[in-house]
Amino acid sequence: MPNFEQTLKEFSSQFNSFLPSLFNHPKGSERQVTEAMFYSLSNGGKRLRPFLVCETAKLFDITEDTSFHVAASLEMLHTYSLIHDDLPAMDNDDFRRGKPTCHKKFDEATAILAGDGLLTYAFEILSQAPQISNDTKLKLISLLAQRAGAFNGMIAGQMLDLQTEKTPALSSEKIIKHIEEMKTGCLIAYACQAGAILGNASEKQYQVITTYARNIGIAFQISDDILDVIGDSVLMGKTLGKDAKQGKLTFVSLYGLKKAREIAQNLVDEAKNSIAIFGDKANNLCKLADFIISRDH
Amino acid sequence: MPNFEQTLKEFSSQFNSFLPSLFNHPKGSERQVTEAMFYSLSNGGKRLRPFLVCETAKLFDITEDTSFHVAASLEMLHTYSLIHDDLPAMDNDDFRRGKPTCHKKFDEATAILAGDGLLTYAFEILSQAPQISNDTKLKLISLLAQRAGAFNGMIAGQMLDLQTEKTPALSSEKIIKHIEEMKTGCLIAYACQAGAILGNASEKQYQVITTYARNIGIAFQISDDILDVIGDSVLMGKTLGKDAKQGKLTFVSLYGLKKAREIAQNLVDEAKNSIAIFGDKANNLCKLADFIISRDH
Repeated sequence: MPNFEQTLKEFSSQFNSFLPSLFNHPKGSERQVTEAMFYSLSNGGKRLRPFLVCETAKLFDITEDTSFHVAASLEMLHTYSLIHDDLPAMDNDDFRRGKPTCHKKFDEATAILAGDGLLTYAFEILSQAPQISNDTKLKLISLLAQRAGAFNGMIAGQMLDLQTEKTPALSSEKIIKHIEEMKTGCLIAYACQAGAILGNASEKQYQVITTYARNIGIAFQISDDILDVIGDSVLMGKTLGKDAKQGKLTFVSLYGLKKAREIAQNLVDEAKNSIAIFGDKANNLCKLADFIISRDH
Repeated sequence: MPNFEQTLKEFSSQFNSFLPSLFNHPKGSERQVTEAMFYSLSNGGKRLRPFLVCETAKLFDITEDTSFHVAASLEMLHTYSLIHDDLPAMDNDDFRRGKPTCHKKFDEATAILAGDGLLTYAFEILSQAPQISNDTKLKLISLLAQRAGAFNGMIAGQMLDLQTEKTPALSSEKIIKHIEEMKTGCLIAYACQAGAILGNASEKQYQVITTYARNIGIAFQISDDILDVIGDSVLMGKTLGKDAKQGKLTFVSLYGLKKAREIAQNLVDEAKNSIAIFGDKANNLCKLADFIISRDH
């Protein structure tokens, strides 16, 4: 795995160098909001979603000159969701990846606006991305809005999550559906599908990429649940044990650690099988699937 | 003016009947967020922005079959901004148009998500609007994101507004710029420009429509400032006198009532002149400009 971690690190380093080109801060007092946006966006983790966009696009020989804009737009959307989730009225977190959360570094009003700003900017970046046809951009915008949205997307998942905390008596089927719908699943699905759309994938190719995405999305969520129980809060850069404290239903609380690990392993195996049709080109995607369940942070 | 108020009422009634077609609520507990979105969206005022989109589009013989989707998307974006502005961390308002604000009716977390959901859905609606070419949709999306955004748009205006409250020693030029940039100006500009884009306007036509929009946007803001001082809080459905209480710089605090009224009248005259090239087709837009400074709520 060390080699793959190196691959991920190199990718995120390149991606991080690209981000400032998208931020031309205004000169007036209003720049506080763009600074807050950039503060949170820069405090990136492993950049898994951008990596997925770019690696899936590479299956179709689309280079990062093109896919970085789409990846950046997705990472902005992901970051907005973290900023708003961290707010006192939501999860009330003071730290994110070891640094003060946006509302702690600035203030609540600025954090709300910074989240709004990143969500809005994600669509602006997509609509103006170079080297992509208008038809493709429109497909990406439409899909991103759906996956991130309130009807069947990330916001619906977040709402369900808040409701589950209040009424923790949901069935296990419900929780699977819930996890699928949660932000992790929705945006990971989008990441891979965006790469496929950029590559003008056939229906069959789109389908196997969707299977891959769905599986690693759930595996990622299970792995997060496991790390919430057994992880190292310093490595993770966040407070752990919150799920149990809040009485949240998770794969771990439902099946126990051993069974949860088995389920995650099966999902990863299936994910890797589904993209076998791309041969060696899918090597990094397979390694990523393995990494998701073996990571310690 | 009574005739024009009737025109506005008939429009908003038709527009309000159209909105439910865009809301197919999910069945699970996550529907709370879409209900909150619809609650705030339904609690509409005069629907000035949708009216502007549709009237400007009519200059180019584009009917409401087409323009309603664009108008709805803009009204969603406007509503999200109100929901987030009303939050305790921002303006902390309990009532909006005489009804409890979203976070009072539901809770803060739901209101944050409902705002996020409307902002996201605005882009989804635009990307899937029927009878509009992909190129036009992309132009609309790009412009909406800019006008609503953090770099030079509505969010920048909101940030500046929050900063002004803290440091009320800004120059008068600054405040004009501020008002132009504020949400009123940005979204009114977008409303008119969206109609022009739908109508495939010439450069000259786009320019005069932009002048019209800019002028009525500032006039609208001045009129709001005046109503905050002399308005009837029952008619307005909101708390008044807040600007003075918060020591906000407004046109009224800067120039006094009489001079502020003169400035607004001049802006409206110039707005009407600028769109004279459209002849009788622009009658409603001219009446709207008059209405903006004569309204009592």
